[in-house]
Amino acid sequence: MGEAEKVKVIFQPSGRRDLVEKGITIIEASRRLGVDIETLCGEKKVCGKCKVRVEEGFFEKFGIRSSLAHTSEWQEEEEKFISPEEREKGYRLACCAKVEGDLLIFVPEESRAGKQVVSKAARQIDIQWNPAVRYYYVELTEPSFHDPTGDFERLREELERKYGLTELDVDYLTLKELPVLLRKSGFKVTVAVWMGKEIIRVLPGQVKDCYGLAVDVGTTTVAAYLCNISTTEVIDTVSMMNPQCKYGEDVMSRITFHMMHQDGLERMSDDIIEGLNTLIKQACEGTHPPKKKGKEKATQEHSAEDDKDYLCLEPEDIVDMTLVGNTAMHHILLKLNPEYVGLAPFPPVIHKSLDIKARDLGVNINKSSYVHILPNEAGFVGADNVGVLIAEEPYKNEEMCLIIDIGTNGELVLGNKDKLISSSCATGPALEGAQITFGMRAAPGAIERIKIDPETHEVDYKVIGREAWKSYSKPEEMQTRGICGSGILDLLAELYRAGVILKSGRFNPKQKSKRFRKNPENGQPEFVIAWANETSIKKDVVVTQKDVRQIQLAKGALYCGCKLMMRRMGIEKVDKVKIAGAFGTHVDREKALIMGLFPDCPVENIIAVGNAAGDGARAALLNIEKRNEANWVARNVEYIELTVEKDFQQQFMEAMQIPHMTDKFPHLRGLVPDEILNQK
Amino acid sequence: MGEAEKVKVIFQPSGRRDLVEKGITIIEASRRLGVDIETLCGEKKVCGKCKVRVEEGFFEKFGIRSSLAHTSEWQEEEEKFISPEEREKGYRLACCAKVEGDLLIFVPEESRAGKQVVSKAARQIDIQWNPAVRYYYVELTEPSFHDPTGDFERLREELERKYGLTELDVDYLTLKELPVLLRKSGFKVTVAVWMGKEIIRVLPGQVKDCYGLAVDVGTTTVAAYLCNISTTEVIDTVSMMNPQCKYGEDVMSRITFHMMHQDGLERMSDDIIEGLNTLIKQACEGTHPPKKKGKEKATQEHSAEDDKDYLCLEPEDIVDMTLVGNTAMHHILLKLNPEYVGLAPFPPVIHKSLDIKARDLGVNINKSSYVHILPNEAGFVGADNVGVLIAEEPYKNEEMCLIIDIGTNGELVLGNKDKLISSSCATGPALEGAQITFGMRAAPGAIERIKIDPETHEVDYKVIGREAWKSYSKPEEMQTRGICGSGILDLLAELYRAGVILKSGRFNPKQKSKRFRKNPENGQPEFVIAWANETSIKKDVVVTQKDVRQIQLAKGALYCGCKLMMRRMGIEKVDKVKIAGAFGTHVDREKALIMGLFPDCPVENIIAVGNAAGDGARAALLNIEKRNEANWVARNVEYIELTVEKDFQQQFMEAMQIPHMTDKFPHLRGLVPDEILNQK
Repeated sequence: MGEAEKVKVIFQPSGRRDLVEKGITIIEASRRLGVDIETLCGEKKVCGKCKVRVEEGFFEKFGIRSSLAHTSEWQEEEEKFISPEEREKGYRLACCAKVEGDLLIFVPEESRAGKQVVSKAARQIDIQWNPAVRYYYVELTEPSFHDPTGDFERLREELERKYGLTELDVDYLTLKELPVLLRKSGFKVTVAVWMGKEIIRVLPGQVKDCYGLAVDVGTTTVAAYLCNISTTEVIDTVSMMNPQCKYGEDVMSRITFHMMHQDGLERMSDDIIEGLNTLIKQACEGTHPPKKKGKEKATQEHSAEDDKDYLCLEPEDIVDMTLVGNTAMHHILLKLNPEYVGLAPFPPVIHKSLDIKARDLGVNINKSSYVHILPNEAGFVGADNVGVLIAEEPYKNEEMCLIIDIGTNGELVLGNKDKLISSSCATGPALEGAQITFGMRAAPGAIERIKIDPETHEVDYKVIGREAWKSYSKPEEMQTRGICGSGILDLLAELYRAGVILKSGRFNPKQKSKRFRKNPENGQPEFVIAWANETSIKKDVVVTQKDVRQIQLAKGALYCGCKLMMRRMGIEKVDKVKIAGAFGTHVDREKALIMGLFPDCPVENIIAVGNAAGDGARAALLNIEKRNEANWVARNVEYIELTVEKDFQQQFMEAMQIPHMTDKFPHLRGLVPDEILNQK
Repeated sequence: MGEAEKVKVIFQPSGRRDLVEKGITIIEASRRLGVDIETLCGEKKVCGKCKVRVEEGFFEKFGIRSSLAHTSEWQEEEEKFISPEEREKGYRLACCAKVEGDLLIFVPEESRAGKQVVSKAARQIDIQWNPAVRYYYVELTEPSFHDPTGDFERLREELERKYGLTELDVDYLTLKELPVLLRKSGFKVTVAVWMGKEIIRVLPGQVKDCYGLAVDVGTTTVAAYLCNISTTEVIDTVSMMNPQCKYGEDVMSRITFHMMHQDGLERMSDDIIEGLNTLIKQACEGTHPPKKKGKEKATQEHSAEDDKDYLCLEPEDIVDMTLVGNTAMHHILLKLNPEYVGLAPFPPVIHKSLDIKARDLGVNINKSSYVHILPNEAGFVGADNVGVLIAEEPYKNEEMCLIIDIGTNGELVLGNKDKLISSSCATGPALEGAQITFGMRAAPGAIERIKIDPETHEVDYKVIGREAWKSYSKPEEMQTRGICGSGILDLLAELYRAGVILKSGRFNPKQKSKRFRKNPENGQPEFVIAWANETSIKKDVVVTQKDVRQIQLAKGALYCGCKLMMRRMGIEKVDKVKIAGAFGTHVDREKALIMGLFPDCPVENIIAVGNAAGDGARAALLNIEKRNEANWVARNVEYIELTVEKDFQQQFMEAMQIPHMTDKFPHLRGLVPDEILNQK
């Protein structure tokens, strides 16, 4: 059999490349090269998520000429998702366009698929460049009898002369390498300087790009952004479940684990540190050429020579790292006793930011580097919230902004340039799937999106691990297992909007859907989301009256928190609502408004800011002013304990109704049928 | 048999104590309690070195009344060494006075015997108190709902309020202990602050005294001074051979060992770090009650309660440490490549002082503490010389001072407040016993003092490990093995003064002593120092013509160095000569002048300053200004390479004569017979 004709394909920004058979789709090619491209509909050409850009021109570095003409014909389905301007620029849907010749393909950030279910992709944020670690190149004169000055002073004097860096110190481990390195490099070196005061790395020759990692340690998810500090570009996002989950789902159960086990803190800390090291390794491996397995051996063209074009980063190339997390995660990671954070009056061990040598933490990056840990506001509002604040900067604006960070705990900040108050509310784990009959973690088989037809009460949904929605799939393809956090948010809003449940949360007894029934065993009303034949557990996935109550409790806590804070602030409405946090990237702003997660606000002023805590970590990585800002804001946000407000119970009860017992929601007009909205 | 009546004896400052039988001498009692008191004559009551002071009064803490009346009668021999004033104050010779009742005895520093042959006892030096580490006591209010500030900020705010300490940081490992410690101590703690900026230790309750260690890492000997930083008092001096001696005797052979073995640097560094940790342990153990062996079990009176009066320090109680050493020792200890220090133009890896976390060096003191390493001047004049300079402060005086630090290398500094120059000269190892027929290290059996009778040419000497001189001993008691450094210094001076050798160094052929002879085997002239029956090696210990030449080479190098430096400085004579270094404590200034170690100077202006390098380390431990002074002086002493001076050879040759070929030594008149001094 004759071999198929092969052409060269290169994906940017990862730089991955290889020869592929002519005629396969770009999506197929991306899979073979280990490049992840989003494809929600499962290549049905209906979601438009797999947009890529074909670069035109001759690329000398790679020795190829790439052209749109090297792709198959334009398809009708692409029209819907790609504007004429975009088409002009070379955009195609990767599921439509076939590879017909050499191609250099750029995958935009929004088309890159997270490699993990728990991925928190990086948002485009505007950060001024003023990093803690900078590279400086110097050429030194060699020692002589007339100038026998020592190596370090020789280096220091030149750095002062050329760059005005005065009084530089050096980390001991970097100093150890200096003499041999200077001589091996002919006294021409690049020096990494931390905060303008300490030399933390010396590299032979001239090196321009330096790399850092911004990490958000969530109770459930850990996300790390590998950044080019010199260009501020995000190179990759890697994430994982917090390995501490095995000790307990939420903050309090982790604290309890520490109190019940003498080595509990040590174990939980070691686990997260090991987790960080795994992420570091992963992030670095992503910059290497893909490893070939069995049959797919490296072709002759893919030689070691080619590998030079990959970044090929190693952990020691990461010279700076920033870290955010809630106060408990912060304490546990640092092996700071978290006991008192869980005990009234909840004082943290430390508020201010810390710069700890990576080696003291056991974090495997450049051995002389520091890990910068952002400051905590209070026992229940930690460095993660500070991260959100420095990313969103509510203290720089006139407008009154409400920021809701929904994780395992709800963290709220309200204010503007004049005043900021923060609080936390016990949303409980319901919004993350716990305490719900078919609730589960965000994992393959979990329902993450739901739509309920107001007429037929038919349900459409999507599960994690499968791109295509149920309506595009055969029932047996769904392999549904339960409902995760973002699915639960959709659920309450959709049940209410479709009239399946009433304002009070009770199931509407008058509904006609065959999905509504009394449980044959306990007689309780329930609504079927997925029929048994669509599941891998072989039973109907339902939502019960009790489940609805649990979700109402969570949303009520959050709404009540928002309202009490607004009262404290003396305001009737907010100008802007920002939703951040664990499902910040998944949340549907309309549905959040419909279910009454927060007081009324024009939909266009509700903004999902994704993982803003992680953005804050990135901001602090790239700009030291943000670190100062973080310390300032951590001590200037006033923390308010809401549960001690005297009408808290009454407020909470009213907030449990959907969207609220008495508050008006003018901005829901049009989103929810009037008869639904007007019900008593 | 009835037991002997027992009385209580306590020795200060060590605090050691126990019951002893009435009637034994104080010396004997000191031995039983493990307290070392100097006794050069071997208790023959002729050296007067064992002076102690009996404290009078009732000592409530110990529950005893101590009185001179509790000692045996005053003896005639004591008259010679103890002045009436001293007698008034309670001084006695420990070998004369017997214990007749309870006694509290103070052992003055000068009467304390080094525990090791290589001991470098601490000198009384005047150091202003301004230490890097200070203790501060605070009482904090506990957190409440109205003031839920975190632990660290709570502590920091009180330290600022009470002591004006601003912007305090905290070491990560200390922070970890903070929350539990605060609560255990009822929020009353003592805080160790380093350099007014970093908290490095927190202790429960009020603690006043804090401790530090000043270390001098010599090529051959390592000495450590355990100091009470709060009182500046030296508590103990511990010392040991540098464990690197097994890799080579001198600096160059260590450097070579590194170059020949891939793990050479690592091994040598690990060895000295392990050595430091041994010294730290030793120094701490010295503050604990003596351990009882077999028969001498703890009496009932010696209970755990009593132990409270001992300092009972543990390594973590040492909160600061300073370190000096020559450039090679400095580099090897820090695992800094020493290769280029041994290679023209001899640039060190670093000049400036370093503050390195003890844990990064593997040094077992308080885990958050720093080790301060003093700066280097140049490749051959290291931090040890800087230590000498900040201890002796020649830069503060008008008088022109010559400082000679004789170790394995000779280091010279000349100058006053206007200018300082330094140099090093290859004295070689002869002055330390190497390359001499019967030369040996300072170890038991080594001759360390020699006197030769000018009339009879009879030799008297003293060996290490035996207090009594030969003339006080039976021949077989001497167990002589060879001659060590300080003996060699005496030797040349005595041989010359007694007329055994001529000015040129040649044996005087006209001498009548039966100790002078031709070696039966090689026919070379030699002079017998110790007859075979006085030795443990069963042969005559002699000095040969070649030995004399070796010593002349060493002293010639030193003298020549001094002279060339004086010429550079444009001076004819120096006002003061200070001798420091390995045998700085042993050197006899007259003999050093006689043998021509340095240009003429009034004997009373020749001062043996002992281990001035160690004193410098102590000064830096107790006063941070001394650290700044050290960095200043290290960069302001001009290093001069003498071997490149054009008449170096001629100068060297002239300097080999005893005391010099042409220079006049008016101050030797009276010390050396005129006919000897006037010989051509």
